[in-house]
Amino acid sequence: MESRAKRIYRYLDDDIDAVLFMNDEEPNVDTMFPYATGTAGGLFEGCQAIVWPDSKVDLLSTVLEETSARLSTAHVTVFRNPGERDDLLRRLLGSAKRVGVNARGLSYNNYSVLKKALPKAKFIDISSALLHARVVKDKDELKRLQKACDIVSKVADEIPDIITPGMTELEAAAELNYRMQRYGATGPSFTTIAGFGPNSAEPHHEPDGTKLRKNDFALFDFGALFQKYGSDLTRTFFYGRATKEQKRIYQTTLEAQLAGIDAIRPGITGKEVDAVARSIIDSSEFKGLFIHSLGHSIGLSVHDGARMAPTSDLVLEEGMVLTVEPGIYVRGKGGVRIEDDIVVTKKGCKVLTSASKEMRVV
Amino acid sequence: MESRAKRIYRYLDDDIDAVLFMNDEEPNVDTMFPYATGTAGGLFEGCQAIVWPDSKVDLLSTVLEETSARLSTAHVTVFRNPGERDDLLRRLLGSAKRVGVNARGLSYNNYSVLKKALPKAKFIDISSALLHARVVKDKDELKRLQKACDIVSKVADEIPDIITPGMTELEAAAELNYRMQRYGATGPSFTTIAGFGPNSAEPHHEPDGTKLRKNDFALFDFGALFQKYGSDLTRTFFYGRATKEQKRIYQTTLEAQLAGIDAIRPGITGKEVDAVARSIIDSSEFKGLFIHSLGHSIGLSVHDGARMAPTSDLVLEEGMVLTVEPGIYVRGKGGVRIEDDIVVTKKGCKVLTSASKEMRVV
Repeated sequence: MESRAKRIYRYLDDDIDAVLFMNDEEPNVDTMFPYATGTAGGLFEGCQAIVWPDSKVDLLSTVLEETSARLSTAHVTVFRNPGERDDLLRRLLGSAKRVGVNARGLSYNNYSVLKKALPKAKFIDISSALLHARVVKDKDELKRLQKACDIVSKVADEIPDIITPGMTELEAAAELNYRMQRYGATGPSFTTIAGFGPNSAEPHHEPDGTKLRKNDFALFDFGALFQKYGSDLTRTFFYGRATKEQKRIYQTTLEAQLAGIDAIRPGITGKEVDAVARSIIDSSEFKGLFIHSLGHSIGLSVHDGARMAPTSDLVLEEGMVLTVEPGIYVRGKGGVRIEDDIVVTKKGCKVLTSASKEMRVV
Repeated sequence: MESRAKRIYRYLDDDIDAVLFMNDEEPNVDTMFPYATGTAGGLFEGCQAIVWPDSKVDLLSTVLEETSARLSTAHVTVFRNPGERDDLLRRLLGSAKRVGVNARGLSYNNYSVLKKALPKAKFIDISSALLHARVVKDKDELKRLQKACDIVSKVADEIPDIITPGMTELEAAAELNYRMQRYGATGPSFTTIAGFGPNSAEPHHEPDGTKLRKNDFALFDFGALFQKYGSDLTRTFFYGRATKEQKRIYQTTLEAQLAGIDAIRPGITGKEVDAVARSIIDSSEFKGLFIHSLGHSIGLSVHDGARMAPTSDLVLEEGMVLTVEPGIYVRGKGGVRIEDDIVVTKKGCKVLTSASKEMRVV
């Protein structure tokens, strides 16, 4: 299997002397940092990783993170303060002319730090190449993602036993997070969404004190973080009784989702898959109510760079891991979203999340 | 009370025409964004906030975040795609000559987007002024922080009832997170640290399958997120029996922490407070084993910009909220850290976290 360093350089021009990643303070850290170094823990604020054309990786670490650093496969050097770090940088990269950086994960502030430490270097934004490298997952990544998907699926199947009348969104979210962690997750891979009733119509609703009431939609969008890799799953339930319209919303969403999954194969573009699912909703009475893109890649970040959206030219490749998540949102009433994680295979795709999608009135 | 917009401009030169914040994709979002807009939820990836010298605030939002956006006090305009957003930007800022940006929260990628959309503008890094503005909390912020501190304190006091023989770090972390959320937190304010035995000697240890064994230190560093504001608290317990050396480590850490808290008042510098606490550890048999800074400001970020460290020239002001967290770390054996959150008052400080610090063998 190709090393990550090789994957990174595969999409670069020949004249890049080194690739350099640098974290700012949380939350402004670069998810390419654990990708390049293989670290499974640690924050590494203000730390740097250098990936060389010969696939060697240098990790410049603070004392604070030394233990986590030494668990990685990178060559670790510890610095005591920014001055020492910049000296190290100069020693390692002083003669480099073209240094690749990840403009999406590098703060403008750290860009200035690098420019000052290495005045002779030219910094080239290689973020598109990095996304390209990263969107296809290797064996170790797929193993971590499968575990993250197993955990979230197990909890999703327990939801009908979890929800009780009068329960608040926050209580439900707490229960989902707790169960994920008990099953081995470091934590949720993003803020768990629990949306009851009209709140389910807002795709990024944050859980609050809203109570579950009869005839509500109950939407749960959550994921498990396992060794820095996150899954992402949505299931929507009916509480009490479902009206005929609610049932049609659910069935149309499910039909769109299954058609989307069915369309996935190497060579198809993101916009083609999006169109397959979207056309089912847009040719129904719910036309125009699917207000976001069909899916996104997942991995070290919950939006890992690639999308299946109406304008996405992404060409799907074997090993890409993506969400498929159409939704129908009726402002003031509620919404349904059904989301699974899939990996593109040689001939189609494999669904990594296993939770039931049957319409459930609980 | 001074508005946040006023606070921001107070530390700026007169010639700044507007201040502009822009989020990249998670995790690379700017914590100044909720500060400027007052939003309590939502992700706002790719969205922008403009703060004007007359204290008006414009929020340019995607459709996805419209509901969260409209709950803020900002003037909301919704865009459908990046092209529309850039047109809006040009309309609003086309004649601006000097635009302030937060270089620590802005990705280098988005900096390039802004430069392209507003070719006539000069972008000035005002991040230091912003940290200065933000480090003193207003009434609304203090209310949210107090609530975040109340939640974490309540859970910390429950730890002796939570830990059981053979429990793993991950299980303990899950339990703490669950209880915080049940008490009203959106989630943990950072990845909960549970470090048993030798793991407690690593300040940023991430919880794993390590089991709690007799005569271990059990260190818990965690915080509650409440309406985007996070608390940060550490307590260390002994499990089984404490050796004489372990007890001395605990007492020395506690003595350093109390002395640090006692030294805090408006006008003192971060390095002076750090020195008060550090000198107690460094004049003991544990000299040199306190390997990080004494504390940091908290708020919208768990490291909210200011520090009390050996080199910190920060002058403390009424309304600053900081952690006080000395620790002693013995590699291979274990460590103790005791951390509280305080707000600087007119004459000293008030401790916001209320959990017991008595040495507890459980």
